[in-house]
Amino acid sequence: MEINQVVGTLYCTERIEGLRHCSLRILKDKKGKLLVATDPVGTRPGNWVFTVSGSAGRYAMGDPNIMTDLTIGGIIDAWAPETVAKPEASSSASPATPRDKAA
Amino acid sequence: MEINQVVGTLYCTERIEGLRHCSLRILKDKKGKLLVATDPVGTRPGNWVFTVSGSAGRYAMGDPNIMTDLTIGGIIDAWAPETVAKPEASSSASPATPRDKAA
Amino acid sequence: MEINQVVGTLYCTERIEGLRHCSLRILKDKKGKLLVATDPVGTRPGNWVFTVSGSAGRYAMGDPNIMTDLTIGGIIDAWAPETVAKPEASSSASPATPRDKAA
Amino acid sequence: MEINQVVGTLYCTERIEGLRHCSLRILKDKKGKLLVATDPVGTRPGNWVFTVSGSAGRYAMGDPNIMTDLTIGGIIDAWAPETVAKPEASSSASPATPRDKAA
Amino acid sequence: MEINQVVGTLYCTERIEGLRHCSLRILKDKKGKLLVATDPVGTRPGNWVFTVSGSAGRYAMGDPNIMTDLTIGGIIDAWAPETVAKPEASSSASPATPRDKAA
Repeated sequence: MEINQVVGTLYCTERIEGLRHCSLRILKDKKGKLLVATDPVGTRPGNWVFTVSGSAGRYAMGDPNIMTDLTIGGIIDAWAPETVAKPEASSSASPATPRDKAA
Repeated sequence: MEINQVVGTLYCTERIEGLRHCSLRILKDKKGKLLVATDPVGTRPGNWVFTVSGSAGRYAMGDPNIMTDLTIGGIIDAWAPETVAKPEASSSASPATPRDKAA
Repeated sequence: MEINQVVGTLYCTERIEGLRHCSLRILKDKKGKLLVATDPVGTRPGNWVFTVSGSAGRYAMGDPNIMTDLTIGGIIDAWAPETVAKPEASSSASPATPRDKAA
Repeated sequence: MEINQVVGTLYCTERIEGLRHCSLRILKDKKGKLLVATDPVGTRPGNWVFTVSGSAGRYAMGDPNIMTDLTIGGIIDAWAPETVAKPEASSSASPATPRDKAA
Repeated sequence: MEINQVVGTLYCTERIEGLRHCSLRILKDKKGKLLVATDPVGTRPGNWVFTVSGSAGRYAMGDPNIMTDLTIGGIIDAWAPETVAKPEASSSASPATPRDKAA
C-alpha cells in the first residue's frame, strides 16, 4: 500500500458503467504524480491516506463489481518512525553479513 | 487509476483473438510515454481520460473475455484542486508527528 | 498495454513446465530495457508490437495454463497521432480549470 | 518479492472494513520511499524483511478477505552473495553470445 | 517476464506459512536492485534467469498455494539479437507513419 495526499475531486460524467456514481478522488504521490482513486472512506482534500491497489482495491470497495484499481484504504492519523535502531544494532544492520555467523 | 491523454488510434490487423475488433487508443502519460488502451467510452484525440489497469480493466470492458490490461474508464470533465489546506492546518500536515499526541 | 520492439529469441531449455515449448521473444522497450514475452502471433525481429501483461497475458495465450505474465498482443501496422487539438482547443486543454464552469 | 526495512507503525482509525484491526507497518525501500504493509509475522522497527505483493499478499495473510496488496513475508536472517562467478566464468557471463555455440 | 541474475540465497527462518520451506533466491536486475524469488528450477549463483511475476508466478511453482509474487521461470542458455533490421527497413521503422499509406 502506498501513502498519498488527497488534492481534489475528479469530475467525469462519461464513464464506464462499472464505476457507477462512485466519487473519484485525485491523489498526489510523493513525486507529485496525480492518481485517481475510489473513496469508500469519505476523505477531504488535504487528508493523508494510504491506498490499496489491484484486485484488493476492488474488493476493498465492499463490492467487487466496482471497476477500480486503486481504493483509499484509510485516513492516516499519524505514523511513528519509532526510533529505528542505529546501524550498529544487530537487528537493523543490513544483513549482508550472515547474522547466524555472528550469533 | 491514472490520468492520460488520447493521442491517436493504433492500427493492428494481426492480433490475438482475445482483443477481437476492439478499437485501440494510443495514450500519452505525463512523462510522454505511449500506452495502448481499449476504449469502451468512445474518446477522441485530445481527450483527457483516466485509465483502469489490471483485471479491473478487463471487467471494465463489460466482457472479461476481452484480453486487455488497460481500459479507458472515463473522459475527464474537470478536476478541482479544491484549495488544499496549507501545511499549517492540522489535516494536511504530513502526519510524521502523531496527531493523537497533539490532540 | 505497452509498445515494444522484438529484438530476438530467448533460448532456454531448463524452464518451468508451465511454459511448455512456447517460443519466447526478447523485446526492447523505449528505454532500452529487455523483456521476455510469449508470442502467440508469430512475430519476427524488428516488428513493433504491443504487449498484454498480468492475468490478461495468460488468457491471451488462448490457454490460461501457460505461465506467462507478458504476451504479445499484436503486430502494429501503424499508429496515427491524428492531429491532437492544440492546447487552445477546449477538448484538449488540461482540465485543471473546470470545463463545466466555462460552459 | 522485494527487500525493505520496517521503520514504524501506521496509526489509522478511519479505515476500510476489509483491513479490520490488522496492524500496519511502515516500510522504507532502498530509494527511501515509504510503503505500508500488513504484518502477519510480528516485526519490529529496524527489521529487514521481504514483502509479497498483489493477490499473493492477500492470501499470505492466511485470510484472503484481508484487503491488503502488500504483506510482510518474513524477517531476513541473512543473505549471502555466495561469490558470484566473475564475468569470465561461462555461467555468469551475460548470455548475449549463445552458450550452445560455445559448448 | 524480466531478465535477472541470481546472486545468492536468502536465509529467513521467521516466514509466513504460505512459503513453507521453499528456497528463496536473491536476484539482481540490470539497475542493481535486489529482488527475492522462489526457485522451482534449481539455479546457482551467476545464472541468468527470467522471472514470472504476479499470479502466474504463483501457478508457476506448480502449487498456487505457494505465496510468492516472483518465480524463476528458466535458466537462459543464450539470447540472440538476430540482426534486427535497420531503421531503413520497413518492418523495423517506428510505425509513426501509417504503413498502409506507404503500401
